[in-house]
Amino acid sequence: MLLCDIGNTTATFYKDRKIWSLDIDKFRLFTPDEKVYYISVNDNLEDILSNDIFVNLEPYIKFSTTYLGLGIDRAAVCYSIKTGFIVDAGSAITMDLMSNNIHLGGFILPGITTTLNSLKKISNRLDKPLNSQIDLDCIPQKTADAISYGIIKPIILLVEELSNDKPIYFTGGDGEFLSRFFKNAIYDRALIFRGMLKAIDENKEIIC
Amino acid sequence: MLLCDIGNTTATFYKDRKIWSLDIDKFRLFTPDEKVYYISVNDNLEDILSNDIFVNLEPYIKFSTTYLGLGIDRAAVCYSIKTGFIVDAGSAITMDLMSNNIHLGGFILPGITTTLNSLKKISNRLDKPLNSQIDLDCIPQKTADAISYGIIKPIILLVEELSNDKPIYFTGGDGEFLSRFFKNAIYDRALIFRGMLKAIDENKEIIC
Repeated sequence: MLLCDIGNTTATFYKDRKIWSLDIDKFRLFTPDEKVYYISVNDNLEDILSNDIFVNLEPYIKFSTTYLGLGIDRAAVCYSIKTGFIVDAGSAITMDLMSNNIHLGGFILPGITTTLNSLKKISNRLDKPLNSQIDLDCIPQKTADAISYGIIKPIILLVEELSNDKPIYFTGGDGEFLSRFFKNAIYDRALIFRGMLKAIDENKEIIC
Repeated sequence: MLLCDIGNTTATFYKDRKIWSLDIDKFRLFTPDEKVYYISVNDNLEDILSNDIFVNLEPYIKFSTTYLGLGIDRAAVCYSIKTGFIVDAGSAITMDLMSNNIHLGGFILPGITTTLNSLKKISNRLDKPLNSQIDLDCIPQKTADAISYGIIKPIILLVEELSNDKPIYFTGGDGEFLSRFFKNAIYDRALIFRGMLKAIDENKEIIC
């Protein structure tokens, strides 16, 4: 079974526990030879996705929430977790709270690379790479550390403040790195696909 | 006595407790009729500032620190405070810790407008204004609140975590807004000029 998470710049596939990506331009030329179960936040692919070989899982990813405007990619990630605090760290970082399959809300911050780029634009003096080895127990003593601390420390404080005793899940491109700052955090690159698989599993008769 | 804080896009003046600004292009055409005591982070004004009517205060703003590469504007702000946690909220937000005139270190995050702009560039869906009235005790239930929470909450957690029992000072364009989230915080728009005045006061014989 072939799954696909379609973003604005990349389409990411999942099959038999393997994950790979295509640029959207290449995805446009992709001619699948089996059904592609997908979710998409890309509004410019309607012509391609109208082909019956593409099956949109969005109608099947439903849970109780009062949140308005939750993107389908974020919803799919949340859908994979019954109870937990979920951090999806990509170009933006979303943090969401799930409790007994109910979505309690969430919030958004710029991702690590997005933040580094925004500081670089303010001044050349702030054009520094992330120091992934930074000691967060000491107040920084140089610009590169000051920037790295300003990126990582708030994420840690937010997770500590809001996760309470719930399990903490990390996913997304920077998820593995950030998960290392927590003793009991779970990193799972495939969280979004687990949500999609759950939706398929719960709607087998209709979908398959 | 006329003071001036020269940045990359703006020069800000202080005289008799009044503060006003000039764009750098207009500052280039400015012909002072009295001495201008200044600090500058702008490397492109050497021709203008070489005139004797401009007096650089940078050599007189000195305190004990092991921090490498502290900008002179940030140093002047810190120089105004004997003991305290200082938040300078402009296009970047710097947070610094002073204890008995010793600078213990500090860190940097993107400012409020910088963060809003960086999110907007990720996706149109994240193009939202700040909700300054957001309730930080509730986890957000819509995108505009999710973004505002993701901006304000980390700042509050950082200040709470690091200020300990020290007085908290806010300055910079967003300083007044952010200071409202703390019971005992002091907002002072003129902190940088107080540092400059202190440097002049301590070096009267040499400077004046």
